[in-house]
Amino acid sequence: MKKTIYALCMAAALFSVNAFAQESASTNIIGKEYPKVNPDRTVMFRVDAPTAKSVAVDLGGRHQMTRNAAGQWEVTTPAQTPGFHYYGLIIDGVKVSDPNSQQFFGGGVMQSGIEIPEVAVDYYLDKDVPHGEVRMQRYWSELTKSWRVCYVYVPPCYDTNLSERYPVLYLLHGAGEDETGWSTQGKMYNIMDNLIDEGSAVPMIVVMDHGVANIPDIKLASMFDFTAYEKVVIEELIPMIDSKYRTLADRENRGICGLSLGGFQSWTIAMNNRDKFSWLGGFSGSGKGPGTTPDLYDASLNKDFHLMFISTGTKESPQMYATVKNFHDILVNAGVKHVFFQSAGTDHEWLTWRRSLYKFAPMLFKK
Amino acid sequence: MKKTIYALCMAAALFSVNAFAQESASTNIIGKEYPKVNPDRTVMFRVDAPTAKSVAVDLGGRHQMTRNAAGQWEVTTPAQTPGFHYYGLIIDGVKVSDPNSQQFFGGGVMQSGIEIPEVAVDYYLDKDVPHGEVRMQRYWSELTKSWRVCYVYVPPCYDTNLSERYPVLYLLHGAGEDETGWSTQGKMYNIMDNLIDEGSAVPMIVVMDHGVANIPDIKLASMFDFTAYEKVVIEELIPMIDSKYRTLADRENRGICGLSLGGFQSWTIAMNNRDKFSWLGGFSGSGKGPGTTPDLYDASLNKDFHLMFISTGTKESPQMYATVKNFHDILVNAGVKHVFFQSAGTDHEWLTWRRSLYKFAPMLFKK
Repeated sequence: MKKTIYALCMAAALFSVNAFAQESASTNIIGKEYPKVNPDRTVMFRVDAPTAKSVAVDLGGRHQMTRNAAGQWEVTTPAQTPGFHYYGLIIDGVKVSDPNSQQFFGGGVMQSGIEIPEVAVDYYLDKDVPHGEVRMQRYWSELTKSWRVCYVYVPPCYDTNLSERYPVLYLLHGAGEDETGWSTQGKMYNIMDNLIDEGSAVPMIVVMDHGVANIPDIKLASMFDFTAYEKVVIEELIPMIDSKYRTLADRENRGICGLSLGGFQSWTIAMNNRDKFSWLGGFSGSGKGPGTTPDLYDASLNKDFHLMFISTGTKESPQMYATVKNFHDILVNAGVKHVFFQSAGTDHEWLTWRRSLYKFAPMLFKK
Repeated sequence: MKKTIYALCMAAALFSVNAFAQESASTNIIGKEYPKVNPDRTVMFRVDAPTAKSVAVDLGGRHQMTRNAAGQWEVTTPAQTPGFHYYGLIIDGVKVSDPNSQQFFGGGVMQSGIEIPEVAVDYYLDKDVPHGEVRMQRYWSELTKSWRVCYVYVPPCYDTNLSERYPVLYLLHGAGEDETGWSTQGKMYNIMDNLIDEGSAVPMIVVMDHGVANIPDIKLASMFDFTAYEKVVIEELIPMIDSKYRTLADRENRGICGLSLGGFQSWTIAMNNRDKFSWLGGFSGSGKGPGTTPDLYDASLNKDFHLMFISTGTKESPQMYATVKNFHDILVNAGVKHVFFQSAGTDHEWLTWRRSLYKFAPMLFKK
């Protein structure tokens, strides 16, 4: 009952935010008023930079700011697509972060980010359901001679059902991102908590590793050569996870998927290691990377994998979209059963990948 | 044996970094070359900002940059104190973050930070010892009507010794920081792992909560009025931790300490709740906050607390230093047994607090 009341309060708060009021972005630093998101999804920025000659916001395009009566720089952008977007300020021509915003690792740098709420959509929000944990797990890698960090989501019941073992999904980030992306930008812990609570997804462990590895003896041919990282996953990461966590440590209970570059990695690693994985996904990236020799895709894969899942956003660049769509056609022509999910109206961005995880996770580990 | 080899390799790497080479700062974004720390602890910065008229680095003072032959802005700062320091760039008079640096929450904003290595000091480094985990724990707060986040360190043995229960240290951050500070800037997980491995500290759980709470019905008199946060700690945080983790849930096995504002919070909360805590510390902040009515400190406290610990850096501002030193004198005059640790040559900064934790943690939960 108490739970229902909380849920109602939170839903009410959510709708009031979306429908009626101008609100400080949830991605702002605590206590920072700007940027503010308007009900029509335009965004109002205000920046203190009294000595600058020119200030602009770079959020899906450049929006020149002007000084208000108080001397602060201001602009209201056109309406933004819902979801999470990176942005920056351009001060006298130099792109920098907005000090009012939290910072997110994307595009190989720390960037400001803004969350544009979606009306009546709450699958990635913090709801009144039992919460799992995200754990920082460090492990020594003999292959790379370095300490590596991964984040591990454990489901809400993990520390109470101590005799239970769980299936594991390896969930990879994209190029220029790192092991924090799926938690901070992706809100994967809310997506998983909510799916598990409503009974849509089975409780599972999700491992978010750092998808780059340099092994001294291995020279990589291109960014799509995953030889080194595959060795780390197979020889070090999986054994470490299976020893530290109560996993179901076999191919029937192990999946791998990733976004963009992580999607190419997932497909490459899974194809090479069918004794290790039987559930497979790629969001905005799947199959082998561009310029590589493609794997052989034929109907025999239907026996090797319980699920093959690919996805893309309908607003991705024609080139990005074509990569996934062409791979979908290859699979269709080869008689390979798979799910092809298209996220309506989203680009090569986190809302595409949140939606993809939301579709993918409920299909996992069910036969 | 393998462990010894790793340890030697890491020690060798450490000393070579410190003693002989100019190295990219460990706080840089992956792959970013600058800033670089020289063996004499001067720091070389290089920034791309072709359209800017003036660029300076703000790191313990303002260091004006000049353009090099390639058009990049450059400066080498004077030698820096070892440890972690926040810094920023000043571009045409506007203070912003350095895109080459990781970002840390301090002073109420996200800031760039730089780690200046200490020669032959490794207690806060990632060593080849069993690693605990830092877990993101969310909890619903009925008092504040909000989801709150804390980070919980569990010792290396936590998931293998399943019948074992552990004492708990509540470890608070300072003003303008948040629940991430002790992990990211403080490296508390390395400090605890290393102390536990060498047998200096007993395995314990460490809870790092967000030290700010707004309760609708409670009007706070000043930033040193901790009435609301104390209620959250006592009525919500401790019960949540004792229900979710295998704690020893009594005053004998519960400690509280914090840095700066968190030190004042710790002393205030512990004095008001002696049935809950028997181990107490304040780093660069202790006793009641300035402008408040002081608690009564007398020798009866020696029965209430197994340990009272206060600390300061010897290079803190005269006002900051005096706050702690005066409190030390008050305790001495009142016959209150306590440890007064002074960190040589450090300011109101993270190296003072890392050293304080390193001194404090081994004294905890031993009678």
